[in-house]
Amino acid sequence: MLRTLSTYFVRTLREDPADAEVMSHKLLVRAGYIRRTAPGIYTWLPLGLRVLRKVEAVVREEMERIGGQEVLFPALLPAEPYKATDRWDEYGPTLFKLQDRKEADYLLAPTHEEMFTLLVKDLYSSYKDLPLTLFQIQTKYRDEARPRAGLIRGREFVMKDAYSFDLDEDGLDASYMLERGAYQAIYTRLGLEYVIVAAVSGAMGGSRSEEFLHPSPIGEDTFVRSPGGYAANAEAVTTPVPAASPIEGLPEAVVLETPDSTTIIALVDRANELHPRADRPWRASDTLKNVVVALTPPHGERELLVVGVPGDREVDMKRLEASVSPAEVEMATPEDLAAHPELVPGYIGPQVLGPNSPKRTIDEDGSPTGSVRYLLDPRIVGGTVWITGANAANQHVFGLVKGRDFEADGTIEAAEVREGDEAPDGSGPLHLERGIEIGHIFQLGRKYATALGLTVLDENGKARVVTMGSYGIGISRVLAAVAESTCHENGLAWPAQIAPFDVHVVATGKNSDVFEAAEAISVELDGDGLDVLYDDRKKVSAGVKFADSELIGIPITVVVGRGLTTGVVEIRTRETGKREEVPVAEAVRRIRELHHSLLAGAGTPFASSSVDGED
Amino acid sequence: MLRTLSTYFVRTLREDPADAEVMSHKLLVRAGYIRRTAPGIYTWLPLGLRVLRKVEAVVREEMERIGGQEVLFPALLPAEPYKATDRWDEYGPTLFKLQDRKEADYLLAPTHEEMFTLLVKDLYSSYKDLPLTLFQIQTKYRDEARPRAGLIRGREFVMKDAYSFDLDEDGLDASYMLERGAYQAIYTRLGLEYVIVAAVSGAMGGSRSEEFLHPSPIGEDTFVRSPGGYAANAEAVTTPVPAASPIEGLPEAVVLETPDSTTIIALVDRANELHPRADRPWRASDTLKNVVVALTPPHGERELLVVGVPGDREVDMKRLEASVSPAEVEMATPEDLAAHPELVPGYIGPQVLGPNSPKRTIDEDGSPTGSVRYLLDPRIVGGTVWITGANAANQHVFGLVKGRDFEADGTIEAAEVREGDEAPDGSGPLHLERGIEIGHIFQLGRKYATALGLTVLDENGKARVVTMGSYGIGISRVLAAVAESTCHENGLAWPAQIAPFDVHVVATGKNSDVFEAAEAISVELDGDGLDVLYDDRKKVSAGVKFADSELIGIPITVVVGRGLTTGVVEIRTRETGKREEVPVAEAVRRIRELHHSLLAGAGTPFASSSVDGED
Repeated sequence: MLRTLSTYFVRTLREDPADAEVMSHKLLVRAGYIRRTAPGIYTWLPLGLRVLRKVEAVVREEMERIGGQEVLFPALLPAEPYKATDRWDEYGPTLFKLQDRKEADYLLAPTHEEMFTLLVKDLYSSYKDLPLTLFQIQTKYRDEARPRAGLIRGREFVMKDAYSFDLDEDGLDASYMLERGAYQAIYTRLGLEYVIVAAVSGAMGGSRSEEFLHPSPIGEDTFVRSPGGYAANAEAVTTPVPAASPIEGLPEAVVLETPDSTTIIALVDRANELHPRADRPWRASDTLKNVVVALTPPHGERELLVVGVPGDREVDMKRLEASVSPAEVEMATPEDLAAHPELVPGYIGPQVLGPNSPKRTIDEDGSPTGSVRYLLDPRIVGGTVWITGANAANQHVFGLVKGRDFEADGTIEAAEVREGDEAPDGSGPLHLERGIEIGHIFQLGRKYATALGLTVLDENGKARVVTMGSYGIGISRVLAAVAESTCHENGLAWPAQIAPFDVHVVATGKNSDVFEAAEAISVELDGDGLDVLYDDRKKVSAGVKFADSELIGIPITVVVGRGLTTGVVEIRTRETGKREEVPVAEAVRRIRELHHSLLAGAGTPFASSSVDGED
Repeated sequence: MLRTLSTYFVRTLREDPADAEVMSHKLLVRAGYIRRTAPGIYTWLPLGLRVLRKVEAVVREEMERIGGQEVLFPALLPAEPYKATDRWDEYGPTLFKLQDRKEADYLLAPTHEEMFTLLVKDLYSSYKDLPLTLFQIQTKYRDEARPRAGLIRGREFVMKDAYSFDLDEDGLDASYMLERGAYQAIYTRLGLEYVIVAAVSGAMGGSRSEEFLHPSPIGEDTFVRSPGGYAANAEAVTTPVPAASPIEGLPEAVVLETPDSTTIIALVDRANELHPRADRPWRASDTLKNVVVALTPPHGERELLVVGVPGDREVDMKRLEASVSPAEVEMATPEDLAAHPELVPGYIGPQVLGPNSPKRTIDEDGSPTGSVRYLLDPRIVGGTVWITGANAANQHVFGLVKGRDFEADGTIEAAEVREGDEAPDGSGPLHLERGIEIGHIFQLGRKYATALGLTVLDENGKARVVTMGSYGIGISRVLAAVAESTCHENGLAWPAQIAPFDVHVVATGKNSDVFEAAEAISVELDGDGLDVLYDDRKKVSAGVKFADSELIGIPITVVVGRGLTTGVVEIRTRETGKREEVPVAEAVRRIRELHHSLLAGAGTPFASSSVDGED
């Protein structure tokens, strides 16, 4: 396929778009691959659409290789199935909802678990029909609160979602591992480094869940790895629980004056100044910080929750969100606090919280009432001793002992994970990195099949609920991740596998010989089945053409220009920056050779071995 | 590509779906190509998706052949551009509207004129950039009041929409004709008979507009053709206006008793019974029928309109809708009539309408008020004589003369077109047929470019508003039209060009030799690059397999069964029903030959010459 730049629908821009924060976003816009239509909603220009289709083709091939069968669901769906599984409410404001002219509820699907479940229920009825894996490559909708980074987090995006259907857990495990292997093959072919980490399931439900993260400083996800091979999304990290210490012999707690100490830093300063400790200075880790948040469950009333964490750690809102999902959580507002006068801002202590509260009573149905629910970080075990709020302004209590002086309603994973924290499986200290989520695989189990009644008859004629898996790849996000990881300062640099064109032929100067030679090379390459973009523009300077070529980032550029007088053209390899002069007569052969070696070079596995080999 | 039916995600159904009215809909569902998800919203199963992709590929190839460049717009769009062109309101309840979490207005695009206009405005600025044709193959949304016939009229559907951009009318004409030619090539390749008819532009605006209709009794469109080559959608037919007759000497109009004559039939009977005419009986064509409808313009108040037509013709609501678009129209309700006591149901006459009404006054701004607007069929010219309502129960006026006794506010094309009516260009009597709209091409002109400010600088550096065309093909509807036009009573019968598979290999019986031979043939065909569906199901009877094969409708079926003992297999051609026995060793060669001849057979132009050759 041959396209000429004089007529190709592309305009490169010299200026970065105002709203672009990350390189891939800037360059995809500047090089004419995409245009913003609305926040988180993009239009694919011809160059971008070619890359998108090539990424789709790689994903499709690997899905078909493991026996996945392609279908295509609508994006506009009736609400009923999503109400049956409660995702209509659980998804919250991220779900685009609308009504048709008859005022029936519809949604723009964020994923299609319900519809795949109903489709299989509709068509299949016997254990002999299983296992089954279906997939689609389709446009998805999520009304993200903060769309960002161009295609990385969009509101309309292209996704491959696959679903497996099995009779039992062993079958699900097998389907899951097939899908996992396909994902590894996909990222390897795309040349995209990845790490597989344990993940939480969120609103999807289900049990085993892993994410494929592409390590990147622009990633929204924090993940951890240990030397011993543990890897998890920060939201999925569980805290190793220390052993309880003996309580006997610990001194009584005392309330002391701590004026103007509403922050942990101020409190530690005040404690060291007014009530110094004999053996060592007080530290933030000696304090118990009680953070008030407000939860809103999908069908429930807004209620307050106090989370207690060691004072040297922040509450990580994403970990907290994952722990309380599907409830929504935010920091308590002044109005929330005003409704609970026992909570003295800056001086909140366990004595008025949860089971410690004198106001707590137990309802007829056994649920506690009258006090704010209180959950503790798992490190706060019996026998640990704390400085914490005394529930009165300018006062803290020193020497408060867990298990003697206070209890909680339970524990919660909400404290931040820190570099050097111990891995939950004892495999060593954790190292923190940032990553882009490029894939997510879930063992859904029977949540959807139960809610929607998907059963098959087993060999004994008994109805059995099917067990399912769900597997997603954000195609447009993966494209952006590849762009981000391969781009140079001055432009994109596509791997040969998904580049919009294989070769960029640039004719420079005004000599008609040059344009004739460039066209001849372009036509010959096109005849060989290569995709060629030929910069045939007259009256455009060589400098502009080179800059455009670097911006667009096609793997091989052929410059036909001044060298022609001595019978040579220049071949540039975008990835390495290497330039070579070859005789005109040799050019096509050399380009073909280079193209094949670039294609062959793709496919080097990129996953770090410590993680990739974990099973 | 080779797929085995034992694992392929398809289940054929013996029963027609309850909601299916037309053959293609019944068969596409029964043969496992599509499933209904909601009214007018369908899921593509693997078989259906394969056909869809093949139709898309044909359309894409022909678009690229005329220089069209493919882009891809979002379906979810911000409202602003559609408000700027007023389509936000003009589209009425057919537009799916929603709000995002920030309560910004969005829509699911029914077509993308605005977005293409803005994109070109964004990227292009010079006359040198033109002409330009862009297209996309994309999912569209229209909240149809009456989705019907499966994929024929859906609410979510796949469409190819193309847009041309030119500096002047000649350029637009050239782009339009290129696109017109591409459409002819597409339908010819798909083996789909078509007629090109003049059309009205509706909410799209613009001047020249033609539809491609596939003649079919299930079509929703009525179109006309004349022996002289005139062809038009019924909505676009204009009425030849007769010459006015002299008024002088016509007798005075008289009001006569016509009890119980609220219908034209009753009126004619009553007239002939009580007030017989000397020379011949009264006919329906002697009466003037005044029909009260209610219009609601996009930004206006509901208002009444009376349409006067000869009593032997009905008002055709689709023609009326086209004439008053973008206003919505419906029959007047009893409440509407109650607000206008001068309108006596069954006895309405011109004397109280429009300019004839004694209540009419003229506003300061020159617009009439106080009477209901009155528009006449173009046949009702000066000097014509009518029996019509006397605006009192049981009374009609006889001998009322247009131009002497009454006038109107104008004329309107709203009366039905009838078999034998004269073509407006004098090319003979019209023949009426029904058709499915399979394509629509418009010369939009400057409507969108003006509304959205798309200009380019011409050779003199002067800003010129660009002129545009818009060209649509409903891909999913075309697929259904092909299915409808090719299917047999017992199943689908795809043309080779878009069949989901090239060959259906059926192994019958229980003999393992049969399955081995069938598999060998399947593998060999697959190796030749043919797409093979192999029915490898054990324990399924030959009868069921044959029925499934006929239902699914793949062009070539190979039956490997009892004949194997004498060394032959049977090859069936779906289209013709022809069966032939060939030696096993010859099978693959013969199938290949047959496949190529079927592919070559496609492409016979189907358009009727009288229309196809019109320019």
